[in-house]
Amino acid sequence: MSGSTFNTMFRITTWGESHGKAIGVVIDGCPAGLPLAEEDIQGYLDRRKPGQSKISTPRKEEDAVEILSGTFEGLTTGTPISLIVRNMSQRSRDYSEIASYYRPGHADYTFDRKYGFRDYRGGGRSSGRETIGRVAAGAVAAKLLKELGINILAYTKAIGPIAVDMDKFNVEAIAATPTRMPDYEASEKAEKYLAGCMEKTDSAGGIIECRISGVPAGLGDPVFEKLDANLAKAVMSVGAVKAFEIGDGCKVCTANGSGNNDCFSAESGKVIKKTNHAGGILGGISDGSEIVLRAYVKPTPSIFSEQETVNKDGENVRVRIKGRHDPVIVPRAVVVVEAMAALVLADAVIGNMSSRVSYLKDFYSREQ
Amino acid sequence: MSGSTFNTMFRITTWGESHGKAIGVVIDGCPAGLPLAEEDIQGYLDRRKPGQSKISTPRKEEDAVEILSGTFEGLTTGTPISLIVRNMSQRSRDYSEIASYYRPGHADYTFDRKYGFRDYRGGGRSSGRETIGRVAAGAVAAKLLKELGINILAYTKAIGPIAVDMDKFNVEAIAATPTRMPDYEASEKAEKYLAGCMEKTDSAGGIIECRISGVPAGLGDPVFEKLDANLAKAVMSVGAVKAFEIGDGCKVCTANGSGNNDCFSAESGKVIKKTNHAGGILGGISDGSEIVLRAYVKPTPSIFSEQETVNKDGENVRVRIKGRHDPVIVPRAVVVVEAMAALVLADAVIGNMSSRVSYLKDFYSREQ
Amino acid sequence: MSGSTFNTMFRITTWGESHGKAIGVVIDGCPAGLPLAEEDIQGYLDRRKPGQSKISTPRKEEDAVEILSGTFEGLTTGTPISLIVRNMSQRSRDYSEIASYYRPGHADYTFDRKYGFRDYRGGGRSSGRETIGRVAAGAVAAKLLKELGINILAYTKAIGPIAVDMDKFNVEAIAATPTRMPDYEASEKAEKYLAGCMEKTDSAGGIIECRISGVPAGLGDPVFEKLDANLAKAVMSVGAVKAFEIGDGCKVCTANGSGNNDCFSAESGKVIKKTNHAGGILGGISDGSEIVLRAYVKPTPSIFSEQETVNKDGENVRVRIKGRHDPVIVPRAVVVVEAMAALVLADAVIGNMSSRVSYLKDFYSREQ
Amino acid sequence: MSGSTFNTMFRITTWGESHGKAIGVVIDGCPAGLPLAEEDIQGYLDRRKPGQSKISTPRKEEDAVEILSGTFEGLTTGTPISLIVRNMSQRSRDYSEIASYYRPGHADYTFDRKYGFRDYRGGGRSSGRETIGRVAAGAVAAKLLKELGINILAYTKAIGPIAVDMDKFNVEAIAATPTRMPDYEASEKAEKYLAGCMEKTDSAGGIIECRISGVPAGLGDPVFEKLDANLAKAVMSVGAVKAFEIGDGCKVCTANGSGNNDCFSAESGKVIKKTNHAGGILGGISDGSEIVLRAYVKPTPSIFSEQETVNKDGENVRVRIKGRHDPVIVPRAVVVVEAMAALVLADAVIGNMSSRVSYLKDFYSREQ
Repeated sequence: MSGSTFNTMFRITTWGESHGKAIGVVIDGCPAGLPLAEEDIQGYLDRRKPGQSKISTPRKEEDAVEILSGTFEGLTTGTPISLIVRNMSQRSRDYSEIASYYRPGHADYTFDRKYGFRDYRGGGRSSGRETIGRVAAGAVAAKLLKELGINILAYTKAIGPIAVDMDKFNVEAIAATPTRMPDYEASEKAEKYLAGCMEKTDSAGGIIECRISGVPAGLGDPVFEKLDANLAKAVMSVGAVKAFEIGDGCKVCTANGSGNNDCFSAESGKVIKKTNHAGGILGGISDGSEIVLRAYVKPTPSIFSEQETVNKDGENVRVRIKGRHDPVIVPRAVVVVEAMAALVLADAVIGNMSSRVSYLKDFYSREQ
Repeated sequence: MSGSTFNTMFRITTWGESHGKAIGVVIDGCPAGLPLAEEDIQGYLDRRKPGQSKISTPRKEEDAVEILSGTFEGLTTGTPISLIVRNMSQRSRDYSEIASYYRPGHADYTFDRKYGFRDYRGGGRSSGRETIGRVAAGAVAAKLLKELGINILAYTKAIGPIAVDMDKFNVEAIAATPTRMPDYEASEKAEKYLAGCMEKTDSAGGIIECRISGVPAGLGDPVFEKLDANLAKAVMSVGAVKAFEIGDGCKVCTANGSGNNDCFSAESGKVIKKTNHAGGILGGISDGSEIVLRAYVKPTPSIFSEQETVNKDGENVRVRIKGRHDPVIVPRAVVVVEAMAALVLADAVIGNMSSRVSYLKDFYSREQ
Repeated sequence: MSGSTFNTMFRITTWGESHGKAIGVVIDGCPAGLPLAEEDIQGYLDRRKPGQSKISTPRKEEDAVEILSGTFEGLTTGTPISLIVRNMSQRSRDYSEIASYYRPGHADYTFDRKYGFRDYRGGGRSSGRETIGRVAAGAVAAKLLKELGINILAYTKAIGPIAVDMDKFNVEAIAATPTRMPDYEASEKAEKYLAGCMEKTDSAGGIIECRISGVPAGLGDPVFEKLDANLAKAVMSVGAVKAFEIGDGCKVCTANGSGNNDCFSAESGKVIKKTNHAGGILGGISDGSEIVLRAYVKPTPSIFSEQETVNKDGENVRVRIKGRHDPVIVPRAVVVVEAMAALVLADAVIGNMSSRVSYLKDFYSREQ
Repeated sequence: MSGSTFNTMFRITTWGESHGKAIGVVIDGCPAGLPLAEEDIQGYLDRRKPGQSKISTPRKEEDAVEILSGTFEGLTTGTPISLIVRNMSQRSRDYSEIASYYRPGHADYTFDRKYGFRDYRGGGRSSGRETIGRVAAGAVAAKLLKELGINILAYTKAIGPIAVDMDKFNVEAIAATPTRMPDYEASEKAEKYLAGCMEKTDSAGGIIECRISGVPAGLGDPVFEKLDANLAKAVMSVGAVKAFEIGDGCKVCTANGSGNNDCFSAESGKVIKKTNHAGGILGGISDGSEIVLRAYVKPTPSIFSEQETVNKDGENVRVRIKGRHDPVIVPRAVVVVEAMAALVLADAVIGNMSSRVSYLKDFYSREQ
């Protein structure tokens, strides 16, 4: 069944395998008139690029994006925007061995069971390179949202046991640290922790937090297209994410109603919430306050320690995965979470425009 | 925008408000030939009924389901199955006051902002009664899955600080306890905890766990229609759920790859995983082991303590919510989570049938 | 596979069989604030009711609609509108015989092949009664469109060889004649023609024409969601329709470009087309002129003449269909075509609101 | 709104403009294991290529397809198949003039009204080059269908007043004649007719017929996803098609039930229809006989005669379109209709696999 299309209005379809000729995405439903150039997208792709630090694989991936359609004289035309990134440095010989067994923690086994065989080169479609399409499309969504005053900021909240101290939150540190943490001290500790993991030929997990500001009230639809439900799907569809939270998240299970409810208050003619335990969404609809969500990311499954598994002849074997692999997925996944959040919001801002008959009457009376 | 349809193949559309004439669901895409009677569905609805214990609201809701279409001589016909539950005991006078202000923790404010006004009687479409449609459809999905050997079991894992002791897991306790906990001792403690909350005119949250057994490998589709992503959306779309986990969930953030990876092993010609940290899904596709997921539920927002909020004239006011409200949502939401999981699986078992050309060739060569 | 949902934004799901308990539709995505009462819908349903004249079956079908959800104090709330019509006069004993063989020209055979069995009472889901759901939803769509100045008018263009003389077009005749022709003379001739068909225990076909006025330019989306493509699907999905035309339709095959092109002209600051061979749609997008479409309807397949067919034991048999059947489907299908056109337009007016970034900016700057 | 995605299961998304960098399509949902190489697709694209005869524009378009993803070692992998055709010979200078006015019969005006501006180079997204994506995807669909014994054959039925004599039907003539007519004599006459049109700087329309054989009974879904409704949408979405017929089509309006009904007959244990007025579909579901459909195509709107229109300053002007244009669209659109039919059937064969619970039980009992 088709599974590579996301969203209804600002709809994207991604394609491409780790070691195929290229990776790409088609964005269908982007409104006309958005200024868009390759630089707008390239900046996002560069943030997920490997080879940027000690804690990232030394693979060189150029990942240069090309806009193939959907813009004219620097503006989106309203028709599909096709974005492509050619795969440059993939060398199939590196991956010949993994054809012969199922890597623990990877999708090798499930792809074989589903499809009868698999493109084993670098994980094929289940590779992290698949996220290039998400990030490229997310960059366009984010640009559209910025026009409406909506901004999205994601960062690493924790790597293994090392968590950011939110009192030391420094937005510049996100881009400056290899961990994408908004806290230089925590980042240094996390780098040391990761160095320790690598010494033990092991890997680490972590937490990504994402904050969306400037969100108008009213986005999202009851009962299945709740904004938080769509954010959950978006984020949980990113490989290696095993849990998703909105607002106070898991903590609500031990809270009491009196402490968890956010009281409303009228201030200078505006209704605001005095706290934000809900994370900006009530009944699945944005309430105008900041949206806060978190993704829990598992440790990189590709580790260099010896592991038990089964080979293609059905025999139990002990293997050591070779190649170049990040000891932690989190820093490179930060921009992926940001992109997915942007895509969900882009769909929601469009979908919300028809929530009242009066909006349609206003629109079509102006148009005539 | 339309938001009350879920799934692609086994597609459901729910409708109805708390105090409207009725609540219902249309199931479109259920295969023909499934034995189905109202009793099959009623059992599920009874599990979410209020008024069953001290910790549940004393409201009497009959919630008797009627099959209006889609069956003939006791079997589904392949055409839409329309299910309806008439609203019997709703009394609008109970709710006249809440028309005048925004209840904290509820969707009153966001509905007003989105739609310009709201059906304030009992929360309207944002009421927990909306889940009747989900549960009724989920009962049909679960019946279909049972024909394929797939079984779903949900239960309360924790209420407030009181967690089930999994060593004392007793499946019969789930139906027997008012908490829906599979552990009589924990349930008693939880009841005491809830009694304390009620005394303080407060409410509690908790955790629901759901286990799906008999799942064939191969369900789910890369990259956006991953089985875990769809389960996340399904569960997060249930009101009051603030976090979702699959397998080890949040815990993966502090795990190491060596501990988190599930090794494969060949046993009597079958490939199995020696552990199940992944929760039964790898790369978004079921791996043949048990699927385990958890939902974190917030405390009931309707509390009898005084709260601050804003009234419809934009004034700051202090309010006390009246009426009959459960001190905890968790026990009645257990069957809702089970229903949502069943719906996702029903879609996935259908979608997976066309994953290989050889399946189509087998199918159409038999058919001719 | 699910097949009873139509549209993306103004989405409807119909359900119900000819002799089940009820027939209905759920409308999901109707904007909030539309005044809506049962009378608004009943008028449309009455237009498809049988038993209104000699050329219509004497069956008495009350077809009284009930709004079960989605309105509050006379206005749509933005949540699903559930409409139900109870089946009153259906008597299963009338249909016991048709269980035993395949009626020529009906879906008996194909339903059996697809589903393994069928609800044979009155055609089950393949009965013309299925259109009640379409018409009820179409009435709501038409009400929304009227708020925007869009009006839809359908009528019988021809019955058998008797065609309307468009020079004698009289809009009042549509409601006044049993044929739904806008021409009293043609209607009388058609009635005589039908009387002749009935004498010969035979039936007739015809043509329905539909005109949509007040359509703003810009509705419809390239390349697959063209407005005419969606109108074609909508109309061809009505049972018995075997051909669809837009504008000049079939005639274009023998036209030349010089005669078929509609020249543009600027008149008092507005661009208009001097002719309308295109039928109001260019490149799949409405051009601001009247939309004109036609449906070609086959003769009623239920005829009282002897016919050859196969019974359920696989034997060749000769049968005579009993019961009460219209000699022509066209007059009662006029409102169905009108309803389907309204549904397509309702989706298109919503979908078009996000075609430009500037529209989003305007919308969200006002909202803040 | 997004409009470039078609189908639910065998889902395609096309992109690209006439004078952009490339044109392409992503196929998502193609089952794994289908042998697929670029040659399989190139043959179809070559059939729509211009410059092949006197009656086709002398433009040289290479239209060489490249498979960018979704295959491995010559087989489809079950993941998205991305196909690209680079635009080679497009020269923007040819089209600078048409930026200044609205071409009659084209989408220039409607695109401007919808999006605020347009990519005027060669028609941009509304150009006939858009069909490259459809044809490339249709080639893959046709290959899948051939594995199941389903074959599709389209041809020109008429050009202007010159119709094929079906008694002289010669399948080889379809590929051999520039008109794509299955009748050498008619083709010669049509060529002469077209030569006459060209002399008068005018253009012609025509009819395309498509026959689908080997179709199993049971494809298509009541009530909106009827096979004929989806074929109608598919074919009407092709630019320049103004009418669609199934089986006897328009002719049914003057037929009688006794003549239009197809009687069933049992022959050697099989149920067949003795005639095929229905065109292979009853109640929206395939009946096992040949599917026959027709598309009515308007004359090429780009004619070299002088025409009246409006320029971008809102002034009435007289224009003569320059460039290279086919005097008739029909011959090159034959393969487009064939492709669209293949896409609809590919979706239907997949969707039909879950019509009975017994099919699911068979499937999953084998799988375990």
